[in-house]
Amino acid sequence: MAGSGYDFDGWMRAQLAQVEQGLSRWVRRDAPAGLGEAMRYAVLDGGKRLRPLLVLAACDAVGGHPEAALRAACAVELIHAYSLVHDDMPCMDNDVLRRGKPTVHVRFGQAQALLAGDALQALAFELLTPEDGVPAAMQARLCRLLAQAAGADGMAGGQAIDLASVGLQLTQEQLRRMHCLKTGALLRASVVMGAACGQAGGVADQALAQYGAAVGLAFQVVDDVLDVTQDSATLGKTAGKDAASDKPTYVSLMGLAPAKAYAEALRAEAHAALAASGLRETRALSALADMVVRRSH
Amino acid sequence: MAGSGYDFDGWMRAQLAQVEQGLSRWVRRDAPAGLGEAMRYAVLDGGKRLRPLLVLAACDAVGGHPEAALRAACAVELIHAYSLVHDDMPCMDNDVLRRGKPTVHVRFGQAQALLAGDALQALAFELLTPEDGVPAAMQARLCRLLAQAAGADGMAGGQAIDLASVGLQLTQEQLRRMHCLKTGALLRASVVMGAACGQAGGVADQALAQYGAAVGLAFQVVDDVLDVTQDSATLGKTAGKDAASDKPTYVSLMGLAPAKAYAEALRAEAHAALAASGLRETRALSALADMVVRRSH
Repeated sequence: MAGSGYDFDGWMRAQLAQVEQGLSRWVRRDAPAGLGEAMRYAVLDGGKRLRPLLVLAACDAVGGHPEAALRAACAVELIHAYSLVHDDMPCMDNDVLRRGKPTVHVRFGQAQALLAGDALQALAFELLTPEDGVPAAMQARLCRLLAQAAGADGMAGGQAIDLASVGLQLTQEQLRRMHCLKTGALLRASVVMGAACGQAGGVADQALAQYGAAVGLAFQVVDDVLDVTQDSATLGKTAGKDAASDKPTYVSLMGLAPAKAYAEALRAEAHAALAASGLRETRALSALADMVVRRSH
Repeated sequence: MAGSGYDFDGWMRAQLAQVEQGLSRWVRRDAPAGLGEAMRYAVLDGGKRLRPLLVLAACDAVGGHPEAALRAACAVELIHAYSLVHDDMPCMDNDVLRRGKPTVHVRFGQAQALLAGDALQALAFELLTPEDGVPAAMQARLCRLLAQAAGADGMAGGQAIDLASVGLQLTQEQLRRMHCLKTGALLRASVVMGAACGQAGGVADQALAQYGAAVGLAFQVVDDVLDVTQDSATLGKTAGKDAASDKPTYVSLMGLAPAKAYAEALRAEAHAALAASGLRETRALSALADMVVRRSH
């Protein structure tokens, strides 16, 4: 996928091993009254770990702080995991299947699912602020970026728009805004947080943020495409759900072929941003953009 | 309540004005799709603001950083407010009345309540990490303390124990552990975070942590007492709820008079900790310990 001789798969395997190990160490089973088990169930053994990979690839690109990046990688995954737990609950999407397994509230009850999500969010910020090993200024910056991406001006705000738009006819611009917040904010933050583990400087940071925004939007466009082109078994979650619940999607708005073309255009935009960054080691980021657009689930 | 000539009421009025102003500025109405309104409803115009007052009093005692303390004060209140929103939901306590008003999910629906709670938690960490105005090391430490107090080893863990103990006979030690986490962790953290806005040093920090633990536990004991001695109108929430739902309380375990005596003993413990702290300006903390134990709602 990337330049000659570059072993993206090897890079990815090594990163994923680190992330799984980090998550398994930091999400502890011994939290009280089954809470730890519910948290681990929500986080471990599943998921593409796209956000952690974006953090780690961006950190590589800027030659950043490895310990900070691993913590940031796990922290964004915890935020992502908590959002899925809450999103699946009966009062939200009421989904019973996630990554091919019963969702957390189905397995552990709604109250425990609610608490597990809450505790995962707190844990994300705890991971970012160790007693030592990461410079304090970097810790504070990573917390700020994550809090902004997760909150009302980011993911949670996007979910509120999503809730409010069921059954409505959105313009493409309104749909773009919703997804920029709902899924885009955290994907973009993953890249920006990876960059914040180093000191690449203004031009590179800006280019990486553009890359993150393009990949974040592409991710959602592809998600909408896959929702209508794949079955539940392939996706590991309920397919056709958005269409059935009358949610606006890129496919319902643009049609299938234009949505696919749009995803390709965003992929090109991501590559262009990397080229403009002036950074030398962008092969993992480049391959991740390809992976996001060309994935089958 | 405190030493001669000390105007605790004046101190409190000034602090509360600051906190209300901070919360109103930072919890913005313009968050998307009604989310900001739900967040403000959950946070503003209600609540005793005990946790913010503990932060600000502890900061005063150590001569700490005022901007950091105000942010910390508002951040702990946001965590407290989000926990109430989620706690009141049908899958948890299913409560319809809070601070004399319909609870957030009754007013805005369950999905919006869930999101509002989630966004309030994120906002707490955003408040602690401003671009400038607070030293980075202090920001990072405040985040760490808050994340630990809010998460699986703190408030969320305590709630999980609470859920699991309905209908069970707990020992006093088990009940103490549950409350140390469920309400105690955040109250204690409020004091410790206030102290972290300054540099009081080991002995004073330890004494303040002891004070915070005693006040935190006293708060819960008094809560249990008020649940059986006061009516809903006075409490601003449903009275007799714990007894009705067969939850273990200090009153059910010890009896009413011994529970009251225990609260008084904890008040004395808090005062003793302040005396041992070596800090000069502990009058607000002292008066707050009295207020917690002698409150009527």
